[in-house]
Formats: sequence, structure tokens, C-alpha cells
Amino acid sequence: MATLGDIGVSALINILSAFAFLLAFALLRIQPINDRVYFPKWYINGGRTSPRRGGNFVAKFVNLNFMTYLTFLNWMPQALKMSETEIINHAGLDSAVFLRIYTLGIKIFVPITVVALLILIPVNVSSGTLFFLRKELVVSDIDKLSISNVRPESIRFFVHIGLEYLFTIWICYMLYKEYDNVATMRLHFLASQRRRAEQFTVVVRNVPQMSGHSISDSLDHFFKTNHPDYYLCHQAVYNANKFAKLVRKRDRLQNWLDYNQLKFERHPEKRPTKKTGFLGLWGERVDSIDFYKHQVKEFDEKVALERQKVLKDPKSILPVAFVSFKSRWGAAVCAQTQQSKNPTLWLTNWAPEPRDVYWRNLAIPFFSLTIRKLIISLSVFALVFFYMIPIAFVQSLANLEGLERVAPFLRPVIELKFIKSFLQGFLPGLALKIFLYILPTILMIMSKIEGHIALSTLERRASAKYYYFMLVNVFLGSIVTGTAFEQLHSFLHQSPTQIPRTIGVSIPMKATFFITYIMIDGWAGIASEILRLKPLVIFHLKNMFLVKTERDREKAMDPGSVDYPETLPSLQLYFLLGIVYAVVTPILLPFILVFFAFAYLVYRHQIINVYNPQYESGAAFWPHVHSRILASLLISQLLLMGLLSTKKAANSTPLLVILPILTLAFHKYCKNRFEPAFRKYPLEEAMAKDIMDRTTEPDLNLKAFLADAYLHPIFQTFEEEELVEVRVDKVRVDRQQSYADNAPTSDLSSPSPRHDVYHSTSPPHHSYQPTSPPQDVYYHGSTPQYAYNLSSPPHYGYHYEAEP
Amino acid sequence: MATLGDIGVSALINILSAFAFLLAFALLRIQPINDRVYFPKWYINGGRTSPRRGGNFVAKFVNLNFMTYLTFLNWMPQALKMSETEIINHAGLDSAVFLRIYTLGIKIFVPITVVALLILIPVNVSSGTLFFLRKELVVSDIDKLSISNVRPESIRFFVHIGLEYLFTIWICYMLYKEYDNVATMRLHFLASQRRRAEQFTVVVRNVPQMSGHSISDSLDHFFKTNHPDYYLCHQAVYNANKFAKLVRKRDRLQNWLDYNQLKFERHPEKRPTKKTGFLGLWGERVDSIDFYKHQVKEFDEKVALERQKVLKDPKSILPVAFVSFKSRWGAAVCAQTQQSKNPTLWLTNWAPEPRDVYWRNLAIPFFSLTIRKLIISLSVFALVFFYMIPIAFVQSLANLEGLERVAPFLRPVIELKFIKSFLQGFLPGLALKIFLYILPTILMIMSKIEGHIALSTLERRASAKYYYFMLVNVFLGSIVTGTAFEQLHSFLHQSPTQIPRTIGVSIPMKATFFITYIMIDGWAGIASEILRLKPLVIFHLKNMFLVKTERDREKAMDPGSVDYPETLPSLQLYFLLGIVYAVVTPILLPFILVFFAFAYLVYRHQIINVYNPQYESGAAFWPHVHSRILASLLISQLLLMGLLSTKKAANSTPLLVILPILTLAFHKYCKNRFEPAFRKYPLEEAMAKDIMDRTTEPDLNLKAFLADAYLHPIFQTFEEEELVEVRVDKVRVDRQQSYADNAPTSDLSSPSPRHDVYHSTSPPHHSYQPTSPPQDVYYHGSTPQYAYNLSSPPHYGYHYEAEP
Repeated sequence: MATLGDIGVSALINILSAFAFLLAFALLRIQPINDRVYFPKWYINGGRTSPRRGGNFVAKFVNLNFMTYLTFLNWMPQALKMSETEIINHAGLDSAVFLRIYTLGIKIFVPITVVALLILIPVNVSSGTLFFLRKELVVSDIDKLSISNVRPESIRFFVHIGLEYLFTIWICYMLYKEYDNVATMRLHFLASQRRRAEQFTVVVRNVPQMSGHSISDSLDHFFKTNHPDYYLCHQAVYNANKFAKLVRKRDRLQNWLDYNQLKFERHPEKRPTKKTGFLGLWGERVDSIDFYKHQVKEFDEKVALERQKVLKDPKSILPVAFVSFKSRWGAAVCAQTQQSKNPTLWLTNWAPEPRDVYWRNLAIPFFSLTIRKLIISLSVFALVFFYMIPIAFVQSLANLEGLERVAPFLRPVIELKFIKSFLQGFLPGLALKIFLYILPTILMIMSKIEGHIALSTLERRASAKYYYFMLVNVFLGSIVTGTAFEQLHSFLHQSPTQIPRTIGVSIPMKATFFITYIMIDGWAGIASEILRLKPLVIFHLKNMFLVKTERDREKAMDPGSVDYPETLPSLQLYFLLGIVYAVVTPILLPFILVFFAFAYLVYRHQIINVYNPQYESGAAFWPHVHSRILASLLISQLLLMGLLSTKKAANSTPLLVILPILTLAFHKYCKNRFEPAFRKYPLEEAMAKDIMDRTTEPDLNLKAFLADAYLHPIFQTFEEEELVEVRVDKVRVDRQQSYADNAPTSDLSSPSPRHDVYHSTSPPHHSYQPTSPPQDVYYHGSTPQYAYNLSSPPHYGYHYEAEP
Repeated sequence: MATLGDIGVSALINILSAFAFLLAFALLRIQPINDRVYFPKWYINGGRTSPRRGGNFVAKFVNLNFMTYLTFLNWMPQALKMSETEIINHAGLDSAVFLRIYTLGIKIFVPITVVALLILIPVNVSSGTLFFLRKELVVSDIDKLSISNVRPESIRFFVHIGLEYLFTIWICYMLYKEYDNVATMRLHFLASQRRRAEQFTVVVRNVPQMSGHSISDSLDHFFKTNHPDYYLCHQAVYNANKFAKLVRKRDRLQNWLDYNQLKFERHPEKRPTKKTGFLGLWGERVDSIDFYKHQVKEFDEKVALERQKVLKDPKSILPVAFVSFKSRWGAAVCAQTQQSKNPTLWLTNWAPEPRDVYWRNLAIPFFSLTIRKLIISLSVFALVFFYMIPIAFVQSLANLEGLERVAPFLRPVIELKFIKSFLQGFLPGLALKIFLYILPTILMIMSKIEGHIALSTLERRASAKYYYFMLVNVFLGSIVTGTAFEQLHSFLHQSPTQIPRTIGVSIPMKATFFITYIMIDGWAGIASEILRLKPLVIFHLKNMFLVKTERDREKAMDPGSVDYPETLPSLQLYFLLGIVYAVVTPILLPFILVFFAFAYLVYRHQIINVYNPQYESGAAFWPHVHSRILASLLISQLLLMGLLSTKKAANSTPLLVILPILTLAFHKYCKNRFEPAFRKYPLEEAMAKDIMDRTTEPDLNLKAFLADAYLHPIFQTFEEEELVEVRVDKVRVDRQQSYADNAPTSDLSSPSPRHDVYHSTSPPHHSYQPTSPPQDVYYHGSTPQYAYNLSSPPHYGYHYEAEP
């Protein structure tokens, strides 16, 4: 077991490595050449243009202003300068509320840490059982500060129980306040949003196919009958998955063409060539530029053909549609009610934002969703509990004997002593490492198979799966030795009251492990996050091989967004550790506090300067965060009961029984009180916004505003000319329906309102002046451009590249 | 253990007692004097008037037509004559669907019985392990037919597993078909209903109290703002609980007055007297008639005063209201959507039928509902698992030593040997018997404390609680010996995989017990149901002491209704027994089949001739029935797995693991597919009915139609003059609001539409001719009156006596 000294050494190492990361970051970020890696958000906002303008040639790439090197840590106070309202305008509510999770952690754990350290450490230390046991047991210094040091049957356990009560009440109070806050923020955010397509739109799934009628006809008929006063129009959804695949392939070829052309430009003496076979390894050698030009042209034709087919073929219209209403009230009503006698038809739901739609899943037939969900639940269960089985299998294959048998020619190499020992140490771990690295991707793919139609939902579902995995394999797996599968087996064969006891007993012993874990994953890991090593490398690679124009450079920078599927679960794990150890080994708490504070700074900086959110869900993830922190509370109560029951504190343990019940009741109350704010849209709000709209803009052409908002983005990446064609198509369909509504054909002539729809992170009526421009980076003579250019290039709105 | 012979004897006894009950019923029902006890439904429908008219004096009381005695069992074919559609019109959808549960049981179990008997009995008998074990174990003949007789590790277990699969698929298929059927029937029923108040009405709870505004004002303002096109009017709810209590007391005094006046009429020589003290045991002796006359007068004044107070005092208006809309569409929208930003305010839900409203619970403040539910859940848990503790305590008090200590003067009596042995055998059981007798009442009170506002919901909740009690204490309690508390304790200390094993092993051994249980509770018990002993006695007692007028006699007859809280859970227990034993001891199945068939006949007869449903919920209980039968299926699968794992059938048991998963998936599918039909009202349906209404009656005064529909029934029992006062009050409130709506004050002059609202079990446009008049009972010369008198006396609509 680790002594305090060991922990100190580990802390030193981790602090040093975190410091090294920060230093590297500080040096790299002030180099103009990296500007687009570390400040992409400002480029996208239009707050900054290329730093390469002006100055001498070297200054374009290397920062020569040595003053800025001296103040290399000043990103920290800068990150704190922006107020929450400004962050909401700058990066959206999701990001702002994500940061609130960290402040919530700080708010919860600061008082708990103070109280626990002041009260529990003296109580535990003075109890001093372990001093006498020293000869028999190897105990660490940490253990002397923990509950293990208290004598069995001691009356001091009442202190621990009292504090568990106190902490529970405090945590519930903070959670309640925070939920209230976030719900209010969300409602306020929704209320203050400008007019947006999704406010008027409902996604309808499982439109029944009636023979002799097109999907559009039945949609129009159904909604004109059942929502006569509110129905406006609808946008059919085309099955463009095949089309999107072609476009993606074409883009890849275009990249290769660009790469070869650039290569040729730089070395005009030699035309690049390639072999046509698999991976360019064999086959006829051809001229690369000609080859790719030809291929791109071929694909362009294919793409055009496919586009025609998709738009003309009635079979490519999916039984899904985005139905728009004349008022928010009408849409709110339609989204919340049951439409048809058969509750599996005409399923209505709020439409996600256009950029949040995961188009590919719209093509999934509705009836298969139940089966998909069942299969994925079973798979997740298997993955969480049995993931060691395939890995062990791979490991058994990948040992040296196996390798020698498969590839006998490698034998002389393998038999070398150095290589042998390296492989033997390395190979078994490799499979596990690879698995853990690709795990988030696997979970995301699983969520996609489940068939959710919004990116935000997908990320939330993937995050839930990752949380289960962490809970079982990191938390329980570290406390109870053995694989999750072995644990499952032993738990199935233990009595339900025995399980918390088995786990509870091991908890104090694992405190040192988790302290080390927090330092590695929480401190050094977060510091490496700010460095953005991967995007840095990729950006420079792309810059070297692909970038020709300024626009290409913009495309090459990858701002990314907060990686919710990974960060939320690990955040929740820190809450779990803090809550569980608060009473057991309070010395762990300061480490968690440092994590929360440091990570808060880092993510605040990243959100302000780097990330560009792909969607805005209005903090829809909060109910999950809330309920998982409550679950942690429940787990801590059960484990403390188990732990105390082994300490023969029979007279005090029953006092804890009431706590889980109260916690559950609190959960239920919060669910009733706040969750509807995240799931439904109150009619009161909808009506208020409608009335406001009607008074401010009485003669708004809503139909023009909504036109094409929910058209598959792939049709919108084409030139305007082609877009018109799509619209004409639409108008023709409108006319065919021959209903006497005021369908304005003028939407052909009116300017496309799309940009308004996609970009509303900083509404124009909000006179925002950034308070924290990253001053130190404005070394190049150019005037800082603070003015917000709202009409940022349209191709940022949709990233069809985001589809895997 | 019981042999086949023992079972035969038990069967004989039970069949004989069932036969005795039937014979008694057959004799009693054809006596004119009992006509109102056995055919009250026809009196209420107006299908029959007093049988005492005409004939000689004796024939008024005793049936002298001896021919009818010979055909005493012909109620059975008669009960079958009415078609389902006629039953729906005659007694409502609830009753018709209730009968379908029995036919579902027959449909499910007939093929299962045939298959199980034909396949399993030969398999089990020929296996013959038990013959060899005979010397060591006492085995019954029944066991030779059961799975116990199969040798461990036998390959024959595959037959059992195969049949479990077959039965699961069959049951799921039948359940699916039935759910589909019932959902269609419900939708069809709702669609074919005449215009009813609840179709336009929504109950709004937790109306926020704004200072300076009355509840009515805020209601009007809120709904005029947020449902401008559809809001019509609202009915405030008065807190009339105190008032109702006074009225109940007054009625009780009136009863005493009637009793005494009748006594005096019959014996004019002696004026009845009573003592004024407690229970009339001591105090001054006074003249009874004068005393009660005075008391009734006093109470009349009090009642009038309280009524004024309730109607005038704004504080007696509860933050609850029945809000009516101009169309069904508007009401459907309001019921299904969230109204306010704060999801705990303005809670809307479909209003129950006026006669289904449980007025008392409307006064419960909304915020206490969560706490109430928590407390009741805990209480139900305690009741189910620990109910033996208080009973054991009472029993320990009620033993002989305790009795002697409390009442030493009884010692000489108690010490008599005969009395002593009687008491010792009797007293301990008495407490348990009393508890089991009052259990349904306790559960109903618990449900009322939970705060549901509809009688139908209350009954469903009570039925759920009773089901848990039966499941744990009758089913598990009989299989695993010991009290439920001991079981809970041992289950908590066993591993989760051990529990089904422990229970599974005992299952085959308890078959004989359950066969006896079915015969006692299912055969003889149902036969006693048809006899209606309690209502018979009470009717004659009332007839003797209270009845003065024909109207009193009508009041004295108590048709009752199907006792859902008790019958549904016991029905579900029979399903559970049948499904669990189908594979284990198939010989039990015929007994269950007999139960289903016999009970079906009995309840069909009762529903046609006796019961008068208090409310019509449109088969809202079906989802519960469905999911509990599925739960039985799950239980049977788990127990079979446990049983087989003890039979060392390790190679076959894993085959069963997939079954529970599939069953759960089926449950989820059915929930999605059918449950919304029972919880929500699709807009498509609402719109269709609205359109039909608008075309058939374009100038309907809906406000007049809805006026007073949701007034507390206690205000409606008063004379018309007083009613007008209430309405004037309402109209004044309407006018105060000074909103320019077309509020017709004409509802003062228009005839009260209440009767239409309350009575719609047989809509007039439905030309119904009963096909099965109980011919044999029309012995007295009077003309049978088949014509349906729809305007039955108004005081049947509401029974405020139903409030305990």
C-alpha cells in the first residue's frame, strides 16, 4: 500500500507533467502558425482573420514578441473574464451549462471538504486502532486518516453517519438549486431565442403509406384535417444516404487530386504518378493528376444522376416529414399530443435543430426501432460485463507462441531476448489499450444503431453507455478485484445484503489508488486536453498537403466541440468518488477539488477560444447529470451501510436506512418539478412568443422563412442554381395539392433565409461586446476585428462530413 | 400429502356446497319478495316495476307457480343469451370487458390444458422416478403426474422446456389479440358515445393563487390567453367536505326518525322512547320521534348555513377547476399538453365522468401528493411483508392468560374445559380473520389517502395493492413456508439466483394445496357470490324498519357493482396459478378451467340482472390486467428455471434464459402499441367527432349543456329553487369577469340538461330491444315493461353515500 510519501511522489510527477503540458501549450499557442488550432472559434465567429497578414515573413510563423513569452499563464484569468451571459451568446447554452457542472462540483465539495477534514480526520486519527494492528497488517498512512482507523463497535460511527446525513442534505440542496437554475436558464434561453425553424416544426415519423396517395398528399390531408387552423406546410425527407456516400467518396477523390496538384506545383519537374491497384501497391502506373481528375469527373456524373433519382423517385421519399405550423402554439400542441387512433402511426415529436438532425437514421423503418433497442440493450449489458472475454481471446492469440505458429519466419526476430521480453510485456496490454481507445466510437455506433434522429440524443445515449461502463469497470472493477464478469458471477451468487458489504469493506483500501487515478486522469489528462495535440498535428499535415486557398485552410481547422460522450461520464465518476469517499477517506477530497477547479479553467478556455458546438440542445443533458449525481449519492449510502455493518456498528447502521428512501423521494420530486422543462414546451411560453411575434412583425412570410430549413444539407451544398431546381420541385408539389392556401411562390425570388436559421448563437439584437479579447496574441499589426460577422460562410452550418 | 382420493373428497364437498348455494339462489330468486335483490338492474333501467302489483296477497311474497321451481338452473342459458354489444349498452364497457377476462382465461387455458394433459402426463408418468423412491419419501398420486416424477438429468426436460416456449407464444398471441380487441372496443365505444360533459372537460389542478385575483379570474385569464380559440367556461370546485359530512349526519338522523315513526304506526299504543346518552345506554329518556324531529330540524338549519357559507366564501373555492372547451379537440389538446413554465402549476388532465369524481380528494393540496404517495408506498410494503407482526401482537394479547389477567372475573368461565379449548383454538385465528376481512377496506382507504380524484382510479390502485398482497402472501406464502416477513428476510440473505430455486423446488409439492384452494375460493366462493346473502339480509332489514314509500324501497335495494379491487386480483391469481402449473403439474389446469367457466356464467348473470356500475371508465383497467398476466408468465419462466436447475438439467436450463427477455420485449411492444389508447385521446378521433357534431347540430348551446355538469352532487340533491341560486351565483361570476364572450344567461331558463349527462348507458339513438328477458320470473299478471325509461330518477346519478 502506498504511503503518504508515495502519493507525494506521484503527485509531483503528475503536477510536473501537467505543468509541462501547460508550458507546451503556452508556447505553441502564441505562434501565429498555430493560431487556427488554438483560436478557431474566433475565426468561425469572424472575430479574427488570418494572422499571416502583415509583418515580416518569419513573424508569420513564429512569435517574435518575447514579452508574450513571459506572461504565458495569463490565459487563465482571461478564461475567467467572460461572464456567463456572454458565454451563452458566444458558445450557446450547452457549453455554459456544461461549465456549470464544474462550478457545481466546486460548490458541493468545498464545504464538504472543509467539514470532513476538520471533523473526520481528528475523529479517525485519534481512534487509532491501526497503530496496534500494525504488526499484523500492512497499513498505509492514508488508512490512518480514514474510517478504517476507527475501532469496531465504536460510538464514533455516529459522527460518520451524522456527516453522511449532513452531506446528503447539502448535496440535495445544491442539486435542487442548480436544477432550478438550469431549468430557468433553459426556459429563458428558449424564450429569448430569435425565430427559428425548429420552434415551428415537428418531426412526424411513421407516416402511413396509403395506396394511390403520395406521402406528401397524405401528410397534407391528415394535418389539414386535424390541425386545420395551424398547419402550414411540410418538408418531405429524401433517402439521401446513398447520395451522401457518393458525395463523400467524391470529396475524398478531390482531396487526393488537390494533394497531387499541390505536389506537382511544388516540384514541377516531376509529375506525380500512382498505381491503380489496391492501396496503390500494385497495378498499372498512371499519372495521378489525370487519374484523379478523371475519377472526380466520373463521380460528378454519378452524383448528378443520383441526385436526380433521389429527387424524382417517389420511393426515395421516406415516411418521415418535418411538418411546420403557423404558430409555435400549433407546433407545441402537435408535438405533445397523440395524433392517430393507432399510437404507432403519425408519431410527432419536436424537431431537432436542422444542424442537429442525424439524417441517416431518418431512413430507419419505425417498426424496427423496438428490436434495435432490445438488441443494443443486450449488447451494452454484454459489453459492460463481458468485454474482457473477446480481449482475453485476442490476447491468447497474440502471445508469442501463437505469433510463432502463425508466422514461423518471425521466429529468429522474436527469439531475441530483448524483443521477446518487450513483446511479452506489451502484447497482452495492447489489445486492451486498443479496445479502450475505440470504446467511445463503439458506443457511439451502438447509439446510432438504436435509431435516434438527433446528434444531441445520440451523444447523450453514448454518454449513458459510457457511464455504465465506467461505473462497473473503473469504479467497481477497481474496488473489487477481478473482471466485471467475475464480479457479476459472484454478485449473482451472493445475497443482496452481502454485496454492499463486500464492496464497502474494500473501499477505504482503494483510496490511494483513486488518488493516483485522479492525478493521472484528472490533472495530467486535462492538461493534455488544452494542448490539442491531435488537431495540431492534423492541421499542419493538411496545411502541408491539401490547403490551396484560404477557404481550404478554414476547412482544415477542426475546432471540435465538447466531447460529451466522454467528458460527462468521467465528470460523473469524479462526483461519485468524491461523494463515496467524503465520509470514508476525506483526504481524497482536496484532489477532486483541484480537478474540478483546473478542469473548469481549461474547459472555459477551450469553450471560449476553441470549440464550435455542432448543435444547441438547450442543456438537454442536465436531467441525466442530475440523476447520475443522485445515483452516486445512493451508491455512497448503500456502500456506507455495507461498510458499517462489517464494523459491527449494528446499533448505528439502521439509522442509514431512511437516507436512500429520502434520496429516492427527492429524485422523484425533482423529476416532476423540473424535467418537463427539458422534455416539453409549455403552451404558455409558446403563446407568449407567438403574440410577441405577431405584434412586432405582423406581415411576416413564415412559409418563406421555413422553406428548405429542413432540406437534407447535402442538397444545400450545391450551387444556387441547383437549389432553385429543388425548390421548383417543391413548389410544383405544393401546387399539385391544389389546396387554396397562400403558398407564396415568391420564395424563389426572396433571398434564402437559411443563414438566419443556422446561425443564431449571437442574435443581432443583442449588442454584445467581447470583454476578454485574447490581447496578448494580437502581435501582428492588423486591426483586431471584433465586429461579429453574422453571415459567416454558409457551409459551416452543416457538416455532412460529421456523418461517419 | 393428499392423494387423488383426498382431492376427490374435497372436490365432492366443494361441488356439493356450490350446488347448495345455487339451489338456494334458485329458490330465493323466484320469490317476488326478493325480486329487488336479484334483479335490481332491471328496476334501475326501468325494465321492471314492483312485482307486488296484482295477484293475491300470498303471491306477493311467495312464488306459487310450481312450474318455475322445476327449471331452477335456467338462469345459466339465459345469462348467455345477451350479446356483447347488448351488454355494452346494458351495463357499460367496463362490465363487458370484465367478462372478456374470463373468456380470455378460457381461450388461453383450453388448448393449454389439452396439450399439457396429452403430452406431459404420459411423459411424467412413464418416467416414474418416484415409484422407486416411494419408501423414503411420502409422495402423493398427484406428484406422479407432475414434473417431480421425472428423473434428474433426464432428456425429457426438453419436452417441458419446449412446452413452456409453446405456451408462452400462445399466451402472448392471445394477449396481443385481446389487447387489440379491447383497445378497438374502447375507441369504438368512445367514438359512439353521445355528447358527454367529460369529452369537453379537463380537470385543472394546482391553479396558482394570485393575490388580488380570485381563482375564477385567474382561470379565465389563463385559458383565454393560452387557449383563445377553444376555451369555453369553467366550473369552480367548492370545498364541500364539511357540508357533505353534515348532510350525511342529517340523513342518518332522518333514518332514525323514519324508523321510529314506522314503529309507532305499527304499534300506535306505545310511543317509542330513547335515552339521550352514549349509544342510548344512559341519560334522560325522551320521546324518540320528537327527539329526532328536533334534531333533523336543527341539522337542516346547520346544513343551510354551511351551504351558504361554502357558496359565498371565496376561501372555499379550491385551486382546482373543471375547465370546458368549445370542442373535443380543444379539450384533448389541453389535457395532453403542459400549460405552464412551472410544471407543477396548471396541471391538466382529462376530467373523469361527473359520477366518477371522488370529490373529497379534490381538496387535497397538490404539493402533499408526492409525500402521500411515498408514505403509502412504504405502508403497502410494510403491510405486505410485515402484516403478521401486529396480528401476532394482538394474538399474544388475546390469549387466555392475558384475558384472565385483564378480566379476572371471567376466570371461572374460562377455566371450563370446553370453553377453554374452544377459545384457544378460536382466538388466535380471529384476529387474522378480521384482518383479512377488512383488508380490502384498508387498501381502499390507503388509495384514497394517495389522493386520486376518480373512483375508477381509486379502485384500480386498491386492486394493484391487493394483487401484491395476494402474490406475496397467498402465492409465495403458500409455496414457501413461513410468514412473508421471514421470507423477505431469507430472500435478502440469499443470492438472487437462489431465490427462484428455493421457490421452484417447492412448487410441485404445493399443487394439491392450490387445487383445494381453487375449489374452495373459486368454485364454492363464486357460487356464494350469486346468492348475495348480505344485500338480501340488508334489504329485508331495511324493508322492515325504514321503507315507507316506493322510493324508499328503491333506495333500500343495493345493486352494487363488480367489486374490482377484489375480483381483479383474485382473477389474476388464477391466471398465475394456471400459467405456473401448466408445465409443472398440468392436472391442476382442469380445475382452473372449471373456475373460469363457472365464474363467467355467474358474473354474466350478475352483470345483466344485478350490478349497476357506479362509473364507466371505458375498460381503463385492461392495461393492468394485461401486464399482470404477463408478469405471471415471467414468474412462471423464472420459477421453471429455478426448478430445472435443481433437477441438474444444466444442459437444458440455459435454453429458458431467452424467454423472459422476449416476454419483456413483448410487454414493451404492447405498451407502445396499445396503452396510449387507454391514456390519451387521439386528436384524429376528437376532430372527427367535432366535425360530426358540427354538421348534425350546428347551433347547439354547448355552454348550457355543460352547465352544472361538474357541480358537486351535493348541491344538486337540493330543490330546484336552490339550484337556481347556485347558478345565478355562477352567472354573476361570469358577468364580473366582463369578458365579451357569448355567455348565454339563458341557461337559467333552459331545462336542466343534467339527466342527459348522467345517464347515457343506453343512448336513445340506439334502438335496443332486450333479447333475454328473465321470462320465468314474470309470474305476476302485470305486463312486462320492456321499454327503456331513459329519464330514470335523477338521484341515481350521484351517490354521495358512496363517500365513506
